[in-house]
Amino acid sequence: MNSHDYIEQNKQKFLDELLDLLSIPSVSADSKFKKDVLKTADFIKSSLEKAGVDKAEICETAGYPIVYGEKIIDKNLPTVLVYGHYDVQPADPYELWDSPPFEPVIKNDKIYARGACDDKGQMYMHVKAFETMMATNSLTCNVKFMIEGEEEVGSDNLAIFVKENKEKLAADIILISDTAMIDNDTPSLTVGLRGLSYLQVEVTGPNRDLHSGVYGGAVANPINVLCEMIASLKDENNHITIPGFYDKVEELSKEEREALNSAPFDLEEYKKDLDIDDVNGEKGYTTLERTGIRPTLDVNGIWGGYIGEGAKTVLPSKAYAKISMRLVPGQKSHEITELFSKHFKAIAPKSVKVKVVPHHGGEPALTPTDSVAYAAASAAFEEAFGKAPIPTRDGGSIPIVSLFKDELKLNTVLMGFGLDSDAIHSPNEHYGIFNYMKGIETITLFYKHFSEMSK
Amino acid sequence: MNSHDYIEQNKQKFLDELLDLLSIPSVSADSKFKKDVLKTADFIKSSLEKAGVDKAEICETAGYPIVYGEKIIDKNLPTVLVYGHYDVQPADPYELWDSPPFEPVIKNDKIYARGACDDKGQMYMHVKAFETMMATNSLTCNVKFMIEGEEEVGSDNLAIFVKENKEKLAADIILISDTAMIDNDTPSLTVGLRGLSYLQVEVTGPNRDLHSGVYGGAVANPINVLCEMIASLKDENNHITIPGFYDKVEELSKEEREALNSAPFDLEEYKKDLDIDDVNGEKGYTTLERTGIRPTLDVNGIWGGYIGEGAKTVLPSKAYAKISMRLVPGQKSHEITELFSKHFKAIAPKSVKVKVVPHHGGEPALTPTDSVAYAAASAAFEEAFGKAPIPTRDGGSIPIVSLFKDELKLNTVLMGFGLDSDAIHSPNEHYGIFNYMKGIETITLFYKHFSEMSK
Repeated sequence: MNSHDYIEQNKQKFLDELLDLLSIPSVSADSKFKKDVLKTADFIKSSLEKAGVDKAEICETAGYPIVYGEKIIDKNLPTVLVYGHYDVQPADPYELWDSPPFEPVIKNDKIYARGACDDKGQMYMHVKAFETMMATNSLTCNVKFMIEGEEEVGSDNLAIFVKENKEKLAADIILISDTAMIDNDTPSLTVGLRGLSYLQVEVTGPNRDLHSGVYGGAVANPINVLCEMIASLKDENNHITIPGFYDKVEELSKEEREALNSAPFDLEEYKKDLDIDDVNGEKGYTTLERTGIRPTLDVNGIWGGYIGEGAKTVLPSKAYAKISMRLVPGQKSHEITELFSKHFKAIAPKSVKVKVVPHHGGEPALTPTDSVAYAAASAAFEEAFGKAPIPTRDGGSIPIVSLFKDELKLNTVLMGFGLDSDAIHSPNEHYGIFNYMKGIETITLFYKHFSEMSK
Repeated sequence: MNSHDYIEQNKQKFLDELLDLLSIPSVSADSKFKKDVLKTADFIKSSLEKAGVDKAEICETAGYPIVYGEKIIDKNLPTVLVYGHYDVQPADPYELWDSPPFEPVIKNDKIYARGACDDKGQMYMHVKAFETMMATNSLTCNVKFMIEGEEEVGSDNLAIFVKENKEKLAADIILISDTAMIDNDTPSLTVGLRGLSYLQVEVTGPNRDLHSGVYGGAVANPINVLCEMIASLKDENNHITIPGFYDKVEELSKEEREALNSAPFDLEEYKKDLDIDDVNGEKGYTTLERTGIRPTLDVNGIWGGYIGEGAKTVLPSKAYAKISMRLVPGQKSHEITELFSKHFKAIAPKSVKVKVVPHHGGEPALTPTDSVAYAAASAAFEEAFGKAPIPTRDGGSIPIVSLFKDELKLNTVLMGFGLDSDAIHSPNEHYGIFNYMKGIETITLFYKHFSEMSK
């Protein structure tokens, strides 16, 4: 039997197994799910064993374990290192889900569950593609799996694991499915990812909550001041005003920008989907450029004062915000964190005190488009979809791509099958059955082309 | 026995009774305290009866009742209408109290409890002053008491009660103790109060929470936009930018400003008390002017996005703020609410939708300083404290002062004995025993001077 037929015949089994995986609430950010996260690691180990790895192990870390598995068929053949993650984002707010996030259901040919796309569904395609190649005797590369459980909380322990296991992880290419393609008729390969710098700020005015009548107008209100400070971080063109922020941004050539903008994109559809009357971003750039190649600054959360029902005339002592910046190639996360902190403290008026606490960061990454692996991925997509994939720049961050480059000296192929509309990190996350099945097939084709082209 | 001796001899009884009153949690904003609020009304009725009113009644309203009591000794004598409130602010956050808010304790000659000063302590002085005058046969005016239970939630039902009971409430002057004096050595009489316009705003960006990597930079973030809108409400001189906002503000003469600024005020002490390096307010005005005679705009609460522990890279759908403006004579609450709403909607960028919901308002008020009642109050303070009181403008709001003027055609004397440092509306609210006892004495002296001067 060939791969294609095996995948066809095992469709229901592949789906059932994914639904089982999705029913375990592996929320890494919330310690009350600890048992479930550990159970999920065991599930992955067992899946790898059944699929036919030589050995699979649970590698303990200071946090959640990394599941490692390998199948070495011939040391002279190329080796693919598959990365994915088995943890998921918190599912709150639960009340906005149409069906419970950890009771996966199939509706309209889509699988609904937290992690359906990010990343359980996409990661599990690799396990099933491997099973297919083993069952049909068509595996033509060595394979190593490294599936972690802390991607949604910063991958701190993965970084240590990678640094300590360079030999074990030796490979020719890293393969990851944790990104999106343009749409089901327009395959794409992600060649750029943004980095991240995430911080929390605290502005303190008076030492206690005050009556806004008695003190209002004379004492700095930390909420008003925080708003003014945040507003000042961008000018009227939505250009970020932090000194030095853009200094190291690598500008794209006219041709590169044209290529990027040639991707299919319907602005009216985009606005309709989000129910907005207008997009809003840095002057002089298109929407695709604003999310793909330009750095950003977003407030992810803000709070202070009285936020209950009704009215309280309080002039609060403190106000807080969580602020993150997406970074592009050239920018370094720790440098931007530093620039932000310095600037934010510098612009604070004398009437308040300011604290800045860095949360976590990640580096932006570019993957080469002139490599054998990229050519193999491109050929695999073309064979599976009947169309060559478009290279795209993604707005999100997968900080480990830059880690792998630095520590393992390996490039990554980002072969994503999700869609932007899959609502990852949001209520009603879902993943198309088409995408899941097509992904498995495309992955098997990647191995075929990669081994042929590597000869 | 004269009044002075009666007050001296009954000090412990007066204190014990107040502690009993303070131990009932009459929080009008939270319906779980409903029984306690009603119990407090009964307590006041019974106190008035014991003190010697002709009749006392619980007057039902659509909300909490108004306690009414009167003692008419001679229709030809002047009549004083005493206003106060028996409800209190919520006590949250409870964990910041050194002792439970509804288990009153006396420490360092101060009574600690929610409502100790605002307004149970100050209101109860009038009941005890009345008792004193009845017991010592020295009452020289008719007295009416109108003690409400909804001051902390907007006094909506009091407004109806006043409009429907004009004859019952007929009097020569209204007497209220719900304000502060400068300090225990510097008595003062409040002659101006600020009004209030309180609103809630909601800014909506995309129709759902988005991944800040996938959409960040291209879609308006409602928190960033809200911050920009709030920041734009004041210019670099802390002047409010809402068109027409200052149009009706009655400016004070140079002499009036000088008089206001002659009140004792130690800026260094003020900053030290609040632990701030600098005050902050409208350019061209002193701290006393900023809180006394100038309108303000304060954000009382703000929230949006992820406000839990750690990091979530969300570009939220919505952001909210509670915003209030303190108003000064000339400004009308509903006009300012209108101006704010119009302006806030006008400055919203096309990329977001904005909702403005008015909460409640109140009118600013000035009380005349050339009346018999003011002269009597001044004489009472001078006799009790050995010093004439300084006329001051308070930053807070007592909206019913303007209601009484409009509906009952009556002026008010604001004879407050609190201190700004009493932490009203905050944890550890307290009221000095000196202030409580001196207040009772000063009130009895007011009646004496008022009847004499009215002859």
